Amino acid sequence: PSAGEDNTLRQRKIPVVPVVPERRFDPKAPKHIQEQPWTLTNFWRHFNWLHLILLFTFPAVGIYGICTTPLHTKTLLFSIVYYFYSGLGITGGYHRLWAHRSYKAKKPLQYFFAAGGAAAFEGSIRWWARDHRAHHRYTDTDKDPYNVKKGFWYAHVGWMIILQNPRRIGRTDISDLNTDKLVVFNHRHFLPFATIMAFVVPSLICGYFWGDYRGGYFYAGVCRLVFVHHATFCVNSLAHMLGGQPFDDTNSARNHYITALVTLGEGNHNYHHAFPNDYRNGLRWYEYDPTKAFIWACSLVGLAYDLNTFPQNEIEKSLVQQRQKVLDRWRARLNWGTPLEVLPVMEFEEFLEESKTRPLVLINGVVHDVTGFQHPGGQGLLRSAFGKDATAAFNGGVYEHTNGAHNLLATYRIAVVRGGMEVEVWKSGAGEKMPMKDTFG
Amino acid sequence: PSAGEDNTLRQRKIPVVPVVPERRFDPKAPKHIQEQPWTLTNFWRHFNWLHLILLFTFPAVGIYGICTTPLHTKTLLFSIVYYFYSGLGITGGYHRLWAHRSYKAKKPLQYFFAAGGAAAFEGSIRWWARDHRAHHRYTDTDKDPYNVKKGFWYAHVGWMIILQNPRRIGRTDISDLNTDKLVVFNHRHFLPFATIMAFVVPSLICGYFWGDYRGGYFYAGVCRLVFVHHATFCVNSLAHMLGGQPFDDTNSARNHYITALVTLGEGNHNYHHAFPNDYRNGLRWYEYDPTKAFIWACSLVGLAYDLNTFPQNEIEKSLVQQRQKVLDRWRARLNWGTPLEVLPVMEFEEFLEESKTRPLVLINGVVHDVTGFQHPGGQGLLRSAFGKDATAAFNGGVYEHTNGAHNLLATYRIAVVRGGMEVEVWKSGAGEKMPMKDTFG
Ligand code: HEM
Ligand code: HEM
Ligand SMILES: [Fe+2]
Ligand SMILES: [Fe+2]
Ligand SMILES: [Fe+2]
Ligand SMILES: [Fe+2]
Repeated sequence: PSAGEDNTLRQRKIPVVPVVPERRFDPKAPKHIQEQPWTLTNFWRHFNWLHLILLFTFPAVGIYGICTTPLHTKTLLFSIVYYFYSGLGITGGYHRLWAHRSYKAKKPLQYFFAAGGAAAFEGSIRWWARDHRAHHRYTDTDKDPYNVKKGFWYAHVGWMIILQNPRRIGRTDISDLNTDKLVVFNHRHFLPFATIMAFVVPSLICGYFWGDYRGGYFYAGVCRLVFVHHATFCVNSLAHMLGGQPFDDTNSARNHYITALVTLGEGNHNYHHAFPNDYRNGLRWYEYDPTKAFIWACSLVGLAYDLNTFPQNEIEKSLVQQRQKVLDRWRARLNWGTPLEVLPVMEFEEFLEESKTRPLVLINGVVHDVTGFQHPGGQGLLRSAFGKDATAAFNGGVYEHTNGAHNLLATYRIAVVRGGMEVEVWKSGAGEKMPMKDTFG
Repeated sequence: PSAGEDNTLRQRKIPVVPVVPERRFDPKAPKHIQEQPWTLTNFWRHFNWLHLILLFTFPAVGIYGICTTPLHTKTLLFSIVYYFYSGLGITGGYHRLWAHRSYKAKKPLQYFFAAGGAAAFEGSIRWWARDHRAHHRYTDTDKDPYNVKKGFWYAHVGWMIILQNPRRIGRTDISDLNTDKLVVFNHRHFLPFATIMAFVVPSLICGYFWGDYRGGYFYAGVCRLVFVHHATFCVNSLAHMLGGQPFDDTNSARNHYITALVTLGEGNHNYHHAFPNDYRNGLRWYEYDPTKAFIWACSLVGLAYDLNTFPQNEIEKSLVQQRQKVLDRWRARLNWGTPLEVLPVMEFEEFLEESKTRPLVLINGVVHDVTGFQHPGGQGLLRSAFGKDATAAFNGGVYEHTNGAHNLLATYRIAVVRGGMEVEVWKSGAGEKMPMKDTFG
């Protein structure tokens, strides 16, 4: 069994086909470069030079192309189409189909996605899906390949440029991919295949149909590729930093329409981390998710099937819990009045005596000092209650006050009156059983 | 003391000036018409014929005018200005200043409002404010003059057309109005004053400046009046039926932008009933409330002062409580799994035995039947837990599941295992003290 798999699988004796040789570790081997300090003599060994060169070369070539090549309208339009195609290859294929198995696809659709994904030049399906499964399983930890806790740039591109210690990368179950012929073929022949799809095909198309080989290469090839790259990278960086967490806050994934816009819907990332094997990322009609729409359209013609959705009941439970947290935090910021059990106790005679010097009103056994309060029903009504027990008047005798009035009243509390309303029982700590309730929330 | 006042005031011996004679009641007097059944011979006595005729005549005259009078652009523009002016007289003057005393106004502003309000032909300040205070104090009850529980048309116009039994109309404190010279003068000379403001002035203005006496009368006078009438009536009908209740649901008042739009902001009526002496009705910039803006502008030049606002803390408390209710209702509609204390108890051996026939997983002392569940991490992970205690694996050993996963798990509960986790203690009812929590919310 290869090192990239989960222990639980070995026990289950599922046929594992180690078609692709994997890195192996020997505990007695010299320390991995990432376990050694960065020095002047070894710093260059910390980098994955292939990734580093590619990630800098593509934008450089793209800029050179922009400066030297006129942009034809047809080439521009084709570049946009090809951006959507290669983007879909990653989102609909690499991500939702192969990494998450959130639906099943007939062969033609698989070829379509594999070719599109290759045009995005983001590694083989197998490599991509393995890391992505680790990302979901170990989100925000050291074992997460694109751990956003290491910063925006690390999650965006750093994780590809700086060599990772294979011992720390989380293991995941990719037995399903290792037994999939298309995936294995794709992994074996990725580089030539991707080069053709990313550069040769767009150049040939623009050249053959409207004579713009050069524009096809630079715009539909290189520039389009750089755009797709950084849009996808944003899912690892921006989508873990920017936006809200309507479904779950146990990890850093967030929903934002900007990330969704550039990534064909993947920016609804908070939902996705909570329900990773749902073929949808954006649920509502106003949440941009063309990948979902595309998969759904494919299901209509039978190319996609067994579309997996998480039960609506569970989705709403997540929403309810998250909103409850928001509400609880808001509630905690507000002043709900001194809690009853903290208030000093006053004798009723004291209340009468004190009332001569300041505007005190006794309601529900609690003494309120309403100095400065402008009463909506007129000051007369309020004044008529000074030095009296206005419980009945306040609770409907004269006027049945709204919730807001009860809330406000609580902020004027200064004392409870002994015997005013089973005060002794509250003080003894059995307050919860009393019919009277505090105003908190 | 007059009958229109509150008992509490009599006790307080505030100087009450009964400048205007009020209806008095004799307990031995014959029954009021509203206490008698409607018959063929007495039905005409149930109506307030003055109101009935006016409320039908104005629209009729307006339609006649529209059919026979060309509309000049200048007259149209002036009609709109005059709609705003007379509307403001009611909202900024009658309502927020005199009925609610939500701010103080210098004399010139009072004259301005009194004249504008008269142009709206909705009765004297005193009559209007008295009924309106009763509306706030007895909202949705028989004592509410425009009780919406009697239906849309009753709250809209019916209450003016059908005679009300004065014994049932709620009493309110209008001592402040009875001692206000302007209010008293307005009440005494209302009819000629209103006729001049509503019909003569607009006609003269349009006639003197651009020769359109007839258009001024029909458009800026009658048609504008009918529009202002029904817009204001909407506050009593529509604003108690249409819209949400973000601040309070103890009465029928609602917030809606449509009602707000036609009533210069009064349609933010849920807020207004919760905090009636706030000079604002719409709080946010996107809540249309030009009346608030006008009062605020007047305060900048000193014409208005002591603008009353309700403490932000109290407003937010109302919002928090209302949202909590919405959330609680939502939560109650969802399936949170069988509560632990209702589940049957299973022996551990039974669990092992049962596991041979169906996919059972023991987590946190609870047995779950996960038949049909498509596991996001792959079916392999799930299968590895069948017939085992997967508590540690589920809670972080293999993967630290999100909240959503815990919620979902609860829906698969079928039994608790004896001794599986202090089960006996739960069953004895002391469950709350256990560290393990149920999933509800
Ligand atoms: C002692 C503290 C009091 C507070 C904090 C208070 C608060 C309020 C508030 C916030 C309102 C606005 C509407 C509502 O939210 O219900 C209101 C209305 C009213 N209150 Fe009070 N109130 C107090 C005492 C009283 C007393 C003692 C009486 C009667 C004797 C009274 C009679 C009324 C009436 C009749 C209204 C309705 C008037 C209107 O909305 O125009 N209040 N009160
Ligand atoms: C028995 C009922 C189980 C349920 C209802 C369940 C549910 C879920 C759900 C909803 C997710 C999606 C992400 C999340 O919400 O956390 C998930 C992911 C995961 N679960 Fe489970 N799980 C169960 C059992 C297990 C067991 C027994 C294991 C390990 C032995 C396991 C390992 C994982 C892993 C590794 C992931 C992450 C995979 C990914 O997101 O790509 N689960 N599980
Ligand atoms: Fe992510
Ligand atoms: Fe994912
Ligand atoms: Fe109202
Ligand atoms: Fe009002």
